[in-house]
Amino acid sequence: MRGRVLSPGELEGYVREQIPLSVAIGVRVLQAGPERVRIEAPLAPNLNHRATAFGGSVATLAILTGWALVHARLVAEGRPARTGIAESSVRYDAPIEAAFSAICEAPSPDAWARFTRTLERRGRARLRVSVRVECRGREAARMEGAYVAITPRS
Amino acid sequence: MRGRVLSPGELEGYVREQIPLSVAIGVRVLQAGPERVRIEAPLAPNLNHRATAFGGSVATLAILTGWALVHARLVAEGRPARTGIAESSVRYDAPIEAAFSAICEAPSPDAWARFTRTLERRGRARLRVSVRVECRGREAARMEGAYVAITPRS
Repeated sequence: MRGRVLSPGELEGYVREQIPLSVAIGVRVLQAGPERVRIEAPLAPNLNHRATAFGGSVATLAILTGWALVHARLVAEGRPARTGIAESSVRYDAPIEAAFSAICEAPSPDAWARFTRTLERRGRARLRVSVRVECRGREAARMEGAYVAITPRS
Repeated sequence: MRGRVLSPGELEGYVREQIPLSVAIGVRVLQAGPERVRIEAPLAPNLNHRATAFGGSVATLAILTGWALVHARLVAEGRPARTGIAESSVRYDAPIEAAFSAICEAPSPDAWARFTRTLERRGRARLRVSVRVECRGREAARMEGAYVAITPRS
């Protein structure tokens, strides 16, 4: 498979088509990696009973953004794999009272090299990534996630 | 405030009215506590790109169910408080290929007593709860959550 860099529109179209909840949340992909993914969501569809962003929406946006970073990097390197979440830990630090976005940066070159090497050898590998959620330029939540990628059997 | 036990329909109506994402997920409250909350969701609106339940949907249902247990117990004891999520850690153990439900049982009497005592004294208290997510009678995911309740200022 030849590597290629996804555009924000392409990633957003894929996510919206495959994951109906991303439509409900109102995701807008601003950056599509492979070095950095940033996905934004408006407040209105994500409100809770306290008129701030619902924790489930915050966790969902973070999980999606971490997944998108791993997916975008695998596509960029031409590695066919299916990626899913294995663990997610979210700390909610501040109420979110406006549109919010989740940002995931590429892991260290070492961590990525270990991940792709294991994926090549075993057809299955696990990667940890961090996602921060910002509102009005300030960090409001943080997720540590672990994703598992599996190479399709040929 | 006089304590009262919420019915499943009442809890579902409240959640659907206050949290639009719960409508998108298709929540159906089967048990509304105070000893046990069980909330179900269908697969279709919660699909991912692998035709199983999206991790964000699983986390969201678990976060909502843990919150509902704390809320239902506070209402049952006539304690006015606003409750929100502070931390959530989800482990995704098995793919979910059908409708799924999240179950949260009451914490130990000691943990609950400490929580309500602190809430009375300080107007703010934190409680840890566990939520399991089942599909076809088997555990598929587990969440450990921490919720913070705040007494409204009089």
